[in-house]
Amino acid sequence: MASSHILVLSCPDQPGIVHAVTGALLAGGGNIHESRQFDDRETGQFFLRIVFSAQDAAAIDAAMRPLASQFAMDWKLVPADRPVKTLILVSKFDHCLGYLLYKARMGELPIDIVAIASNHPASALTVSTIGDIPFHHLPITKDTKAEQEARIKAVVEETGAELVILARYMQILSDDLAAFLAGRCINIHHSFLPSFKGAKPYHQAHARGVKMIGATAHYVTADLDEGPIIHQATEAVTHEDTPEDLVRKGREIESRVLGKAVAWHTQHRVFPNAAKTVVFGN
Amino acid sequence: MASSHILVLSCPDQPGIVHAVTGALLAGGGNIHESRQFDDRETGQFFLRIVFSAQDAAAIDAAMRPLASQFAMDWKLVPADRPVKTLILVSKFDHCLGYLLYKARMGELPIDIVAIASNHPASALTVSTIGDIPFHHLPITKDTKAEQEARIKAVVEETGAELVILARYMQILSDDLAAFLAGRCINIHHSFLPSFKGAKPYHQAHARGVKMIGATAHYVTADLDEGPIIHQATEAVTHEDTPEDLVRKGREIESRVLGKAVAWHTQHRVFPNAAKTVVFGN
Amino acid sequence: MASSHILVLSCPDQPGIVHAVTGALLAGGGNIHESRQFDDRETGQFFLRIVFSAQDAAAIDAAMRPLASQFAMDWKLVPADRPVKTLILVSKFDHCLGYLLYKARMGELPIDIVAIASNHPASALTVSTIGDIPFHHLPITKDTKAEQEARIKAVVEETGAELVILARYMQILSDDLAAFLAGRCINIHHSFLPSFKGAKPYHQAHARGVKMIGATAHYVTADLDEGPIIHQATEAVTHEDTPEDLVRKGREIESRVLGKAVAWHTQHRVFPNAAKTVVFGN
Amino acid sequence: MASSHILVLSCPDQPGIVHAVTGALLAGGGNIHESRQFDDRETGQFFLRIVFSAQDAAAIDAAMRPLASQFAMDWKLVPADRPVKTLILVSKFDHCLGYLLYKARMGELPIDIVAIASNHPASALTVSTIGDIPFHHLPITKDTKAEQEARIKAVVEETGAELVILARYMQILSDDLAAFLAGRCINIHHSFLPSFKGAKPYHQAHARGVKMIGATAHYVTADLDEGPIIHQATEAVTHEDTPEDLVRKGREIESRVLGKAVAWHTQHRVFPNAAKTVVFGN
Repeated sequence: MASSHILVLSCPDQPGIVHAVTGALLAGGGNIHESRQFDDRETGQFFLRIVFSAQDAAAIDAAMRPLASQFAMDWKLVPADRPVKTLILVSKFDHCLGYLLYKARMGELPIDIVAIASNHPASALTVSTIGDIPFHHLPITKDTKAEQEARIKAVVEETGAELVILARYMQILSDDLAAFLAGRCINIHHSFLPSFKGAKPYHQAHARGVKMIGATAHYVTADLDEGPIIHQATEAVTHEDTPEDLVRKGREIESRVLGKAVAWHTQHRVFPNAAKTVVFGN
Repeated sequence: MASSHILVLSCPDQPGIVHAVTGALLAGGGNIHESRQFDDRETGQFFLRIVFSAQDAAAIDAAMRPLASQFAMDWKLVPADRPVKTLILVSKFDHCLGYLLYKARMGELPIDIVAIASNHPASALTVSTIGDIPFHHLPITKDTKAEQEARIKAVVEETGAELVILARYMQILSDDLAAFLAGRCINIHHSFLPSFKGAKPYHQAHARGVKMIGATAHYVTADLDEGPIIHQATEAVTHEDTPEDLVRKGREIESRVLGKAVAWHTQHRVFPNAAKTVVFGN
Repeated sequence: MASSHILVLSCPDQPGIVHAVTGALLAGGGNIHESRQFDDRETGQFFLRIVFSAQDAAAIDAAMRPLASQFAMDWKLVPADRPVKTLILVSKFDHCLGYLLYKARMGELPIDIVAIASNHPASALTVSTIGDIPFHHLPITKDTKAEQEARIKAVVEETGAELVILARYMQILSDDLAAFLAGRCINIHHSFLPSFKGAKPYHQAHARGVKMIGATAHYVTADLDEGPIIHQATEAVTHEDTPEDLVRKGREIESRVLGKAVAWHTQHRVFPNAAKTVVFGN
Repeated sequence: MASSHILVLSCPDQPGIVHAVTGALLAGGGNIHESRQFDDRETGQFFLRIVFSAQDAAAIDAAMRPLASQFAMDWKLVPADRPVKTLILVSKFDHCLGYLLYKARMGELPIDIVAIASNHPASALTVSTIGDIPFHHLPITKDTKAEQEARIKAVVEETGAELVILARYMQILSDDLAAFLAGRCINIHHSFLPSFKGAKPYHQAHARGVKMIGATAHYVTADLDEGPIIHQATEAVTHEDTPEDLVRKGREIESRVLGKAVAWHTQHRVFPNAAKTVVFGN
C-alpha cells in the first residue's frame, strides 16, 4: 500500500533541478501531493519540499541518489508524520512547557517528548501534568556550567533526542553546547527580536510605551539572540496594559509562536539559509 | 440647538475628579455621548476624554474653570470635528503624502491641509494631485539647514498650522525646530521601533531575516526615534519577500499607521504621558 | 487591609449615574483602579464596570443600595479573582476541553472545574488529563433526552456550578434547559456566525471556497445559533487548505475564542444587552 | 536583453506536467524566478504560475504549444507588469473608486483606467480627482436596464477593457451582462459573505451584535453573491461601534480587499477553479 513521505532538499540553483527530481519521482511511481519550492536569488540557493505517496519509497530513494550527487544536494527523504524525539529544557517560567505538553497530548504536535530537563526541581513548576515523562533536575551555577551542560548532552545522547526546545530556558548556552545542538535546537525569545534583548524585555517594552509586543522563535546559535528566525508574531497593546498585562499577553504569544515553529520544524517545513530560514509554513 | 463638543483633560489623580467633572457637565445641561478615562497608576496621572452635546458650551466652560484650577488640570474644550490646520513635510518618498491627500479628500480625515513643503521640487514627486494646495520647495544643505528650518517655522506661523506631519520627511530636525513643534508634530518611522533605526531599515530587516515588519507613528522630540509612540502595526513577511517587497509592504503599513495616528490626534484621542502616550483609539 | 473588588451594573441611562456611583465609592473609602462604561444610545441602557480596592466593601455595598433602587440598577459587587465554579459539557470533539483544562491548570483562567459531563464515556476522549475532576457519563438518546437533561440540572445544582460551558457539546438543548441556564451558559459555535449554521460547517466553508474561517462564542438561548455573541475571531485560509486543514485550524480558533469568552465572563467583563452583549475586553 | 514574463496554466492533473513545462522553459533559455503550483486533489485540476525571464519568449511560446495540446492546458504567456485596461463601475458610494484611483496613480496597482461609468452623475460623487479619465453617466431605471447594460457593453468594447470592477456598483447585473463579463469582472461585496446578503449589511451586522465585520471580493456570476471568492478580510468591532462606525470601518476593509483582489487578478495570480479560486497571493 502507498504510504506518505516527505522529500526535502537544498542545493545551488541551476536549470533542471525540478525537472530531474520530478522525473525521479515519476519513474519511482511517486504521486506528488504537495510541492513547495524557493529559489533565493540573493544566495543562489534552491529549496524544495515535496510530499508524495509511493508503494516503494526505496526505489525513489535509489533514483534520488545520483541526482543528489549531480546537483550537490543537501537532502533527506523521510516518512511523513513520524513523531520527532524531543528534549524540552525549561526554567521556572513554564507556560511554554505547559503549552507543548497540552498540544502534544492532544495529538496536535508531532513530537515524542523523551525527556524534560530544568535547572529547577519539578516542584518549582506550575505544570502538574508531566506524568511519566522523565524529568531531569540539572541545577546550574557559574562553577558547574560545564558539568551541567555535559549532563544535557548525555540526556540528548541517551534519549536519541532529535530536537531540543529551549522553552523559556533562561540559561545562555556555551558556544560548545550551541555548536553541539546546531540545527536541532529551537529557542523562544520572549520579545520581538531584534528589539529588547536582555532582561525583562516586556518591562523594557512597557517603559518605551510600545503599542505592540511580540515573540520570536529561532534556531540556537552561539549568539543567543541572533540565530535564524523561524517565526514571529505580535499583538497590539495599549496604555492600559501594565507590565504584568504585557507579561501575561506575552506568555500567550510565546506559547503560540514556539508551538508553530516546533510544528513546522518537525514537519520538515523549515530550511536553514545562511543566517536566515526558508519556511514553507501552513 | 445642541452641538457636539469634546472635553479632554489630564491632572494628578485624586478621588473625586470624575464626580466633579460629570457634575459640571450635568449642571451645564451637557448630554454625555462617550466617555473614556485612564488612571496611570505608575505616574499618578489621570486622563479623561468626554464627547457631549450641549445647547451652551460656554456655560460648561465656565463650570469647568474652577475645577481646572482646583485639580490642576491640563484641559481643553473644543467643538467636535473641526478640521485641524495641517502642514505636511515630505521628501521624495511620497506614498504617505499620497495617502493623506486621498483620505482628506474623501472626507475621512479631519484635516485641512494648509500647505505642503518638501526639500525636493513638486516635479520630483509621484503624487500628481496636489492641486491648489500651496507647495513650498525648501531645499536644504548642511549649510542652509538653519535658514531652511526658519522658513518651515514661517510657513507654520503664516498658515496657522496646528499640526505638522513628517510624512517620510527624511531630514533630522534640529533640537530647536523639534522644540518649536513639540506636541504638534507627528513622524512616521519607516520601521518597527525600537528595531532597525537608521538608514534602509527594510534592508536591515531583510538581512536579519525577520518574519514580520512594521511601522511606528510617534510625536517628534529632539531624539527623532525616541518620541512618544502613538500607533504601531505589523505585517507578516516570508522568505519569498525581497527587500523591494518589504519596501512595498512597508509603504502600505506606513501609510495606514500614519493615517490612523493623525486621525486620532485630530480627534483629540491622544494624550502625551511623559515619554509615552495615552490613546483612546477607535 | 484593602482588597480588590469588582462593581458591575446596568440601568436605564439618565444624567448623574457616574456622579452618584463614584460619590458612593468615594464616601466608602474606595480607590478606583479601572473604570469602563458604555451608554447604548439605541436602547438607552447604561453599563458600568469598576475595579476598586477598599478596606471595607460592606460600607460601599451599603452606600450602593439606595442608588441601586433610585436608578433601577441591575448590579453586583463581588471580590475580584474569585474562581467561578464551572461545569463543562463535551462531546467527543474535546479539543476545547483540553484547552480549558490546560489554561485552568496553568492558572490563566479563573475557573474551578467542579465537573465534566459528556454523552460519551471518558474513554472516548483524547484528553487524558481529567485527573480527579468528577466525570459524568450522561448518554443521550431521543427518548432519554428529558431524563438526561434532568441529570445535567442535578449536576449543576449539586456542584453549585455558576457557569456551564458547552465545549463542543454537540447536543441541542431543550428550551427548558436553555431557559434554566440562561445567562450562565456559554457555547462555542464551530463557525463564524451567522454563516454556516448546521452540520459540518468547515466542509460547507470549504465547498464555498471562503478565504477566512472563524469561530463564535455566545450565550446559549433557546435558539442555539442566535444567542448574544461574546467573542469572534477569524483566520485566513487558502485554496491549499483541505477540509481537514480547516477543521484543524478551526480547532485552534475555537479553543482560543472560547477561552477568551470564558475569561471575560468570569472576570465580569460581559453584560447581556438585549440580543447582544457589552464586553469590556482586555 | 532578457525580459520578464508570466506563464499561467491549468489542466487535468497527471504525472509529468511540471517536468514537461520546466523542460520547455529550459530548452527555450528561460530563467525561472518564481514558481507556484497547486494540485486540487478534489477536482483533479492542476494549476501553475511561473515568472521567468528570457531573451526570446517566442521560442518558449512555441515550445509550450505542443505541451498545451498534449495536456489539454488552459494557458497563457504574457509580459509581466503590463497594465490591464480597466473599466470601473460605481454608484454613489465611491470610496472604493477613490482608493483605486489613488493606488493606480501612485503606481501601486497595474491598471490603466480606461473609463469610469456610473448610474449617477460625476457631480454626485465625493471623488474629485477623476481628471481626464472618460466618465460615462449611464442612468438606469427598471425600464431602461437592457439599454443601459448595452451601453456598458459598448464601453467595454470601445475601450478594449480587459477587466471590469464593480466598485460598490449597487445594480444587479442581468444574467446576460454577467455572462458577457464572465471571468473578467470583480465585485466587492460590502459584507463578509456568506453572511448578511442583501441591503444594509452593516446594519444587519450591528443588529446581530457581531464582534467582527468583513468584506469579500469575488468574480461576478449570474448569482451576484455567489461568485468565486478571491479575497476576504475581517476586522474586530465592539459594542461601542455604531452602525455608522461599522460603515466607516467597512469602507476601509472594502477598499483594501478590493484593491488586493484587483492587484492579484492583474498580476495573473488568480485562477478560477469551478465555484472557487486558486490564488497565488503575495
